[in-house]
Amino acid sequence: MTRATTGNSGVKTMRIVLFVAGVFAAALGGLMVVPAALDAVNGNSDWLAFMESAVMSVAIGISVAMVNRGGIGEIGKISLRQGYLLTAASWFAVSLAGAVPFWVSGLNISFTDAVFESISGLTTTGSTVLTGLDVMPQGILMWRAMLQWVGGIGIVVMAVAVLPFLRVGGMQLFRMESSDRSDKLQARVADLSIQIFSIYLLLTVLCAVGYRYFGMSNFEATVHAMTTVPTGGYSTSDQSLGHFAGVGIQWVAIVFMLAGSLPFAAYVRFLYSFDARAFSEDSQIGVFLGACLTFTMIIGLWLVFSGQTAPVDAFRLAAFSIVSIATTTGYVVVDYLTWGPPAVVTFFMLTFVGGCAGSTAGGIKTFRLEVLAMEVRRQCRFLAYPNGVFLDRLNGKPVTGSLAVSVLLFVFLFAASATAMTILLAFTGLDFQTASSAAVTALANVGPGLGGIIGPSGNFQPLSDAAKWILDLGMLTGRLEFLTVLVVFIPGIWPAPLWR
Amino acid sequence: MTRATTGNSGVKTMRIVLFVAGVFAAALGGLMVVPAALDAVNGNSDWLAFMESAVMSVAIGISVAMVNRGGIGEIGKISLRQGYLLTAASWFAVSLAGAVPFWVSGLNISFTDAVFESISGLTTTGSTVLTGLDVMPQGILMWRAMLQWVGGIGIVVMAVAVLPFLRVGGMQLFRMESSDRSDKLQARVADLSIQIFSIYLLLTVLCAVGYRYFGMSNFEATVHAMTTVPTGGYSTSDQSLGHFAGVGIQWVAIVFMLAGSLPFAAYVRFLYSFDARAFSEDSQIGVFLGACLTFTMIIGLWLVFSGQTAPVDAFRLAAFSIVSIATTTGYVVVDYLTWGPPAVVTFFMLTFVGGCAGSTAGGIKTFRLEVLAMEVRRQCRFLAYPNGVFLDRLNGKPVTGSLAVSVLLFVFLFAASATAMTILLAFTGLDFQTASSAAVTALANVGPGLGGIIGPSGNFQPLSDAAKWILDLGMLTGRLEFLTVLVVFIPGIWPAPLWR
Repeated sequence: MTRATTGNSGVKTMRIVLFVAGVFAAALGGLMVVPAALDAVNGNSDWLAFMESAVMSVAIGISVAMVNRGGIGEIGKISLRQGYLLTAASWFAVSLAGAVPFWVSGLNISFTDAVFESISGLTTTGSTVLTGLDVMPQGILMWRAMLQWVGGIGIVVMAVAVLPFLRVGGMQLFRMESSDRSDKLQARVADLSIQIFSIYLLLTVLCAVGYRYFGMSNFEATVHAMTTVPTGGYSTSDQSLGHFAGVGIQWVAIVFMLAGSLPFAAYVRFLYSFDARAFSEDSQIGVFLGACLTFTMIIGLWLVFSGQTAPVDAFRLAAFSIVSIATTTGYVVVDYLTWGPPAVVTFFMLTFVGGCAGSTAGGIKTFRLEVLAMEVRRQCRFLAYPNGVFLDRLNGKPVTGSLAVSVLLFVFLFAASATAMTILLAFTGLDFQTASSAAVTALANVGPGLGGIIGPSGNFQPLSDAAKWILDLGMLTGRLEFLTVLVVFIPGIWPAPLWR
Repeated sequence: MTRATTGNSGVKTMRIVLFVAGVFAAALGGLMVVPAALDAVNGNSDWLAFMESAVMSVAIGISVAMVNRGGIGEIGKISLRQGYLLTAASWFAVSLAGAVPFWVSGLNISFTDAVFESISGLTTTGSTVLTGLDVMPQGILMWRAMLQWVGGIGIVVMAVAVLPFLRVGGMQLFRMESSDRSDKLQARVADLSIQIFSIYLLLTVLCAVGYRYFGMSNFEATVHAMTTVPTGGYSTSDQSLGHFAGVGIQWVAIVFMLAGSLPFAAYVRFLYSFDARAFSEDSQIGVFLGACLTFTMIIGLWLVFSGQTAPVDAFRLAAFSIVSIATTTGYVVVDYLTWGPPAVVTFFMLTFVGGCAGSTAGGIKTFRLEVLAMEVRRQCRFLAYPNGVFLDRLNGKPVTGSLAVSVLLFVFLFAASATAMTILLAFTGLDFQTASSAAVTALANVGPGLGGIIGPSGNFQPLSDAAKWILDLGMLTGRLEFLTVLVVFIPGIWPAPLWR
C-alpha cells in the first residue's frame, strides 16, 4: 500500500484529503452524543436521531479515513496546493456531517434546509430556516450552538495556522516570522492553536456566566455563550436576544461579540506579558473598535434627533445592533430596519466590513480596509510625485505592492461574488434589496439581510431551494476567503491523474 | 508681470489654471448664440436669456483669462500635478457657465436645478430635473443637447490626450508610444484630437440622417443625434425615445450608442488603413460587444419565457435597453423595471460597467474588467505555483503589477464613492434602492436609476437640493475618473503659497 501511494502523487494527495476529511466528519459525529444525552435526559425521542446520526457520521468518517490511512505519513509534508484542497474538502465533509441530525430528527425539514442550517451554523453565519425555536427540543438547539462553536474555533485556527501560509487575500501579513516549513514552526503553530483554544473556552465560560448572572437559564446561557463568542448568532428564541428582558444581557452580548471579533493571537500575547500593548500594537483593533463607536454615535444621534427613541435607550440599541452586524454575529433585539433609510443603508454597508483578521468574524475585515486606505494615499502621492518613494507599514510590516494586490483582489472577488449571487438570486424571484442583501450577508457570514423576508425579524425558510443552495455556496466561499475555494477550480491544482 | 510670475511657481500655476478655465467658460458662452438664434427665429423670448448668458459667460471668462494671460506661455510646460488641477478646474468652470442659461431662462428653476442639469449634460449622464420637455422652447432643448455634445468630445479628447499621461486608473495602458513630453508627441496629440473631432462630427451627422429617415423632424433628429453619439441620453420628450413610434429609430439609436462607446482612436486607425483589424486588435471592443449581445440574449429569453413580450419585440427591446444602460446613454423606450427582479438586478449591475476607454461612455469600463480577470487568473495560478512566472498582455502591452494596482484601485474608489454617496443620500431620506442606484448611475454617468422616483419612467426633480449637490459631485468625480478629483485634495499638489 505504502509503495503504491508513494509512486503516484495524485492518488497520494487524494488519500491525504480523504483521510483528513474522514477524521473531521467522524469527530463531528462523536460530538453528536452531547445533544443525544441532553434529549435522553429530557425524555425527548430525538435522542435516537442524534445517536443514529452519530453512528452514521462516525462510521462513514472512520471508514473513509481507514481506507485512506496511507495518507497519515504525508500530512506533515503537504504542499501549498494540497493545503487548499484539504481545507475546502474538510469544510465540505463537516458541513454534510453536521446536517445529518437536522435531517433525521423530528424537525421534518428537507435535506436542503438541513444542509443550509448546518453550513449557516459552521460558518458562524447564523441565518436560520427554523421557526418555533422557543418550543424546540434542547438537543436541536444545543446542536446548532455546537456547530457554531466548533465552526468558530475552526475558523480562528485556520486564520492563524493555515491562511497566512496560503497567502490568501493579504493574510501573509499575519505570517509568523522565520522559515515557513521548519519543524519548529509546526510546533509553534500547534502550541498557538492550543493556547487559542484555551482562550476561546475561557471567553465562552465567562460569557455564559455573564448571561446567567443577568437572568438566563443555565441552558440558555450556555447556548448563547456558544454562539456569541464565535460571532455566530443562533439563539434559543425566534425573537433572538429580543426575547430576553433586561439590558444587562444586551451589554454582555456587546462585550463578548466584540471579544470574539478581536484577533485571538493578541489574547495569547497578552496572557504571556500582561501588557496592554498586545492589543494596541495591532492597529486593526483600534480601527475596528473606533469604527463601531463612531457608527454607534451616528445611529444613536439619528435615533434621538429623529425622535424615535429616548436617549437612554437609543445609544444602547444602536451599540447592540451596530456591534451585532459589524462583528458578523447577527443577534437582534429590535428591528433596526424600522429606523429609516439612513439606518438601512448603514447596516447594509456594515454587513460588508466584518471584524479583525484572526478572529471568528467574517466579512472583508478591518486590516484590508487599512491596506486599501494606505494604497489610496500612496497612489495619490505617486500621482502628485511620480518619482517619490513611499513606504507604508502596517503593524511594523511593509505594505508591499503584492500585498496591496492581494487585498484589492480579495475585495474585488467579494464584490464580484456578491454581484453574481445577487443576479442568480434575482432569477429565483427575490427582489433587488432582498437578493443583494442575502448575497452579502451570506458572503460576510453575518446572518440577517434587508427586507421583510430575510431581515432582522424574518427567516430564511421562505426562500426557494435554489436560493438556499446559492447561499450555501456563498457562506462557504466567504468563510474560506474566496481564493481557497476559487483555486480549487484551477486544473493545475488537482492531482495529475484527475485532470490529465 | 512676466517677471513676477516666473519668480513664483504657485502663482504661475494658478495663472495657467485660471487662464484655461476662463477660455473654456468664454468658449461655452460663445456657443450660447446657437440656442439664442433658434429661439429668436421661433419668436420665443428665451433668446434674450441666452444672449444675456452668453454675454455674462464670455465677459467673465475673457476677463479671468486676460488677467491671467501671463499663463499662456507656460501651458506647453505644465507639470503632471498642474494637469490635474487644470482638468478639474476646467470642468468646474464649464459646468457653472453651462448652468447660466437654465437659470436665467423662462424655466424658473432653482440655481441647484440649473447646475444639476448642466453637470448632468456636460458629463453626458443624462439625468434630468426638467419635465414638460415636449412643449419646451427649442432653445433650451438645443442647449441641453449641445452640453452633451460638447461634453462628449471633451471626454474623448481628455481620455486620449490627458488621462493616459496622468496615469489614472490604468489609463497609462493607452499612452502613445515613445517619449512622453517631446514636441512631436504634442503635435501628434493635436492631430489626433482633430481627427477624433472629425469622426465625432461624422458619426453625429450620420446618426441625425438615420433618425430623420425613420421619421423624426429635422430638429428632433439633430438633438437626438447630439445626445446619442456622446452616449448622453437627453431627449426632446419626457418619454425619451419611447415617444417615437416605429422600430427603425430604435435600431438607429442602438447602432450609434454602440458607436459612441467604442474607442475613437480605433476609428482613426481604421480611416488610415481601411483595415478591420483597427477594431479587432483592441480587445475591449470584442469583449464589450460580446457582453452586450450576451445580456441581450439573457434578458430577451427571460422576456419570452416569462411570457411578458412576444419574441418579435423581446430581443429588440432587450437590445435597446441593455445597450442604452451598458453604453451609459440612458435612453428609455420601455420601463424595463417592470420586467421583474432578474431584469432589475441585471440593469443595476450593467450600470457599473460602461463602455470602452477612449470613448464617450462612463462607468468602470471594459478594459478594467479585462485587467481584473487577468489578475484573478494570475493570482490563482500564483497560489498554485508560488514560483511560477506569468506574463499577461492586453493589446500587446504587458499587464504589470502597477497597472493591476491602478485598475483595482479605480474599482475600489468607485465602490467606496458609491458607498459613501449611498449613505449620504439615505440621510436625505431616499430609500436603499433609490439611494444606491442614484449613487451608481451618477458615478457611471448613466442616467436612470432604480425605483419609482429616478427609474426609467421617473425624474430627478423630486430629490432634495442636498441630494442633487451630492449627485453633482458624483457625476463630476466619475467623469474625471476619481483620482483626478481626489488628487486635488492632496496638499502637495497645490501651489506652495496656498497651502504652506
